Amino acid sequence: MTKKNALYCQSGGVTAVINATACGVIETARQHADEIGTVYGAKNGIIGVLREELIDTAHESDADIAALRHTPGGVFGSCRYKLKDLTEQRKEYERLVEVFKAHNIGYFFYNGGGDSSDTAYKVSKIADEMGYPVACIGVPKTIDNDLPITDTCPGFGTTAKYIAVSIKEASLDVESMAESSTKVFIMEVMGRHAGWIAAAGGLAGQTHDDPPQIILFPEIPFDETAFLDRVKHSVDQYGYCSVVVSEGVRYPDGRFLADAGTRDAFGHAQLGGVAPVLANLVREKLGYKYHWAVSDYLQRSARHLGSATDVQQAYAVGKAAVDLALQGRNSVMPVIRRLNDSPYEWDIAVAELKDMANVEKMLPRDYITEDGFGITDKCRRYLQPLIEGEDYPPYSRGLPKYVRLKKVLAEKKLPNFDV
Amino acid sequence: MTKKNALYCQSGGVTAVINATACGVIETARQHADEIGTVYGAKNGIIGVLREELIDTAHESDADIAALRHTPGGVFGSCRYKLKDLTEQRKEYERLVEVFKAHNIGYFFYNGGGDSSDTAYKVSKIADEMGYPVACIGVPKTIDNDLPITDTCPGFGTTAKYIAVSIKEASLDVESMAESSTKVFIMEVMGRHAGWIAAAGGLAGQTHDDPPQIILFPEIPFDETAFLDRVKHSVDQYGYCSVVVSEGVRYPDGRFLADAGTRDAFGHAQLGGVAPVLANLVREKLGYKYHWAVSDYLQRSARHLGSATDVQQAYAVGKAAVDLALQGRNSVMPVIRRLNDSPYEWDIAVAELKDMANVEKMLPRDYITEDGFGITDKCRRYLQPLIEGEDYPPYSRGLPKYVRLKKVLAEKKLPNFDV
Repeated sequence: MTKKNALYCQSGGVTAVINATACGVIETARQHADEIGTVYGAKNGIIGVLREELIDTAHESDADIAALRHTPGGVFGSCRYKLKDLTEQRKEYERLVEVFKAHNIGYFFYNGGGDSSDTAYKVSKIADEMGYPVACIGVPKTIDNDLPITDTCPGFGTTAKYIAVSIKEASLDVESMAESSTKVFIMEVMGRHAGWIAAAGGLAGQTHDDPPQIILFPEIPFDETAFLDRVKHSVDQYGYCSVVVSEGVRYPDGRFLADAGTRDAFGHAQLGGVAPVLANLVREKLGYKYHWAVSDYLQRSARHLGSATDVQQAYAVGKAAVDLALQGRNSVMPVIRRLNDSPYEWDIAVAELKDMANVEKMLPRDYITEDGFGITDKCRRYLQPLIEGEDYPPYSRGLPKYVRLKKVLAEKKLPNFDV
Repeated sequence: MTKKNALYCQSGGVTAVINATACGVIETARQHADEIGTVYGAKNGIIGVLREELIDTAHESDADIAALRHTPGGVFGSCRYKLKDLTEQRKEYERLVEVFKAHNIGYFFYNGGGDSSDTAYKVSKIADEMGYPVACIGVPKTIDNDLPITDTCPGFGTTAKYIAVSIKEASLDVESMAESSTKVFIMEVMGRHAGWIAAAGGLAGQTHDDPPQIILFPEIPFDETAFLDRVKHSVDQYGYCSVVVSEGVRYPDGRFLADAGTRDAFGHAQLGGVAPVLANLVREKLGYKYHWAVSDYLQRSARHLGSATDVQQAYAVGKAAVDLALQGRNSVMPVIRRLNDSPYEWDIAVAELKDMANVEKMLPRDYITEDGFGITDKCRRYLQPLIEGEDYPPYSRGLPKYVRLKKVLAEKKLPNFDV
């Protein structure tokens, strides 16, 4: 049997640690050079496979690959491009297998969320049908923490740490200013469907009195009166109020607050965010001075505040993906299994891709306090270990030393294909 | 001569390192217990002095005072309350001196920006007039970096580091996504009048091709056509565009972009930010998918990313303030004097409060590139050392260990005074 090559592909929104997974894949593959030939990285995700744009990682030094462990963003490029139905988009799936054949790919590592599991699963099926079997291994990634089965998703822990640290710091600021100035601080966080990231804000406080005093989850319909009462109560009691709000919070009728019909001077609809909508409400109804922040991409790229747990897990799933491929497994994903809460103990288990695909794990109702504005002890026990440990990048001249790869493309062997 | 007490007061917007200055003041005073009695911290700034709400720091342990060095926010509380004219607000000034007398205050440390220098100067004058001389020492602080004479302002270096690191990280993210999704990322930063904080974003890039590709300064009137051309050029050339924008950017007619007349669904004017206004413009005129962030208070409380240079300087001005008071100086402020760019060398010099008051130091035109969208080498040489060195807080269970003081109030000795 000739030695097969490997193809690694980043998919969907990137995270601060997805490159740690890439590092785990490439370093582990390099340790098995007798079994795995070249490791290619798809340029801009699955689009790059369709276009036959494969980055040959053999041109990258060991030191540069090692530096991926502490470099945020998606080093090979990612994409939002969902391959849907095998019938509807059969041409695309067949193209993928053609590219695999042309470059002797025997191992396909697809690093993404629920959609990506679905794609990897279908790729594996069609490759089989076409008589060119490939080990299709999904590798988990998403700051949204909404994949089933796995204890957590690499990328989430660092985002969670960033959110908890940020709201803790900003709350100290607003508390200092509240007597004569800003009384309400609102921080908007990601998580359009599931409130995991918003919940992480709750880790900033250890007691009921600690900020944030209010968390708004996408799972809980927005109750304007209850929210305003709570803000007022907090300002009365503590002098200020600190709020973490998910971008996905909705009115009881299902509309997003972020799409509240905000218009610019020309009457054009203005999209997002929810933080200014809430701030305006606070001003109109309670008259408090406010500040608001939208951390947006900062929260998913803040590698400077990496959770050591998260970085270790991101690397571990990359390593495990290669190990699984070498064991001849197919259509599977290495996942994280929790063995103990405190001290946190975990190992790597294996899930079937078909079980990972297209299932969103929402925040359970018993992770949210009865009043809907905070997290329960059960939630805290779950979240706490995920932000633990500090994994700092190296610095030079005051800035983190993030690596840029050479990204040399392999020679194309097939006709062009329009994507 | 009986031993006099000291009063330390935080003023205006707080910073990530203003407590490092408090630490410098209190630790240095404790080393001179033979000359300085109790150190009081004014609760919520000058308002607390007027109300005779003085926190007795003798109740705080050495360990807790030492922990102020790495704790953001304003530990005693700050305020936005400007004492204006000596004639108009004579009653307030006289009240301050009454409180000084009642608590045997011989040293008054006022930690703030330009307005605060003005206040401290006037307090010193009226105390003299009233025959109760007090050593009034200003201590510099502001993330805006807009004080005259001093090389930089404690608080700015850490904010600058946060902005440079954040835009560097987020740019890696948008670059990864740009092929099929977000092409433009816009990060709004503080600095309503002076572009120092926006300029710090420029440190993220080492070469002309590095992000951010565009910086918008309050000193440069917004040219919509030139901006959009530049965004398009960047997307054409690099695949994406990363923008740092100051909240203080204005149209040529002087209106803030942030006050661009945005209305909510009910037709109410919605205040700030400039990032969504620009994002909307990019979408309307160029059709690119965008993301935007407003870091707001996060940028001035991000002690987790402290600049070692900034922390050292913040402590040093606190220490120097006490030393100056003990030397019998009055109406002065310790400032930072630059001796060399690289390696950065600095020491503490002394400025007169009257020269510090009410002067805003703007970004010089030759710190901004000719096209108005970037920083020059001269600016880079100035800014670079201010973000250097990492001064991490200690962590426990994944979060920085920020201290909370006991904040025991001294017994009041005077009748109430309405503020």
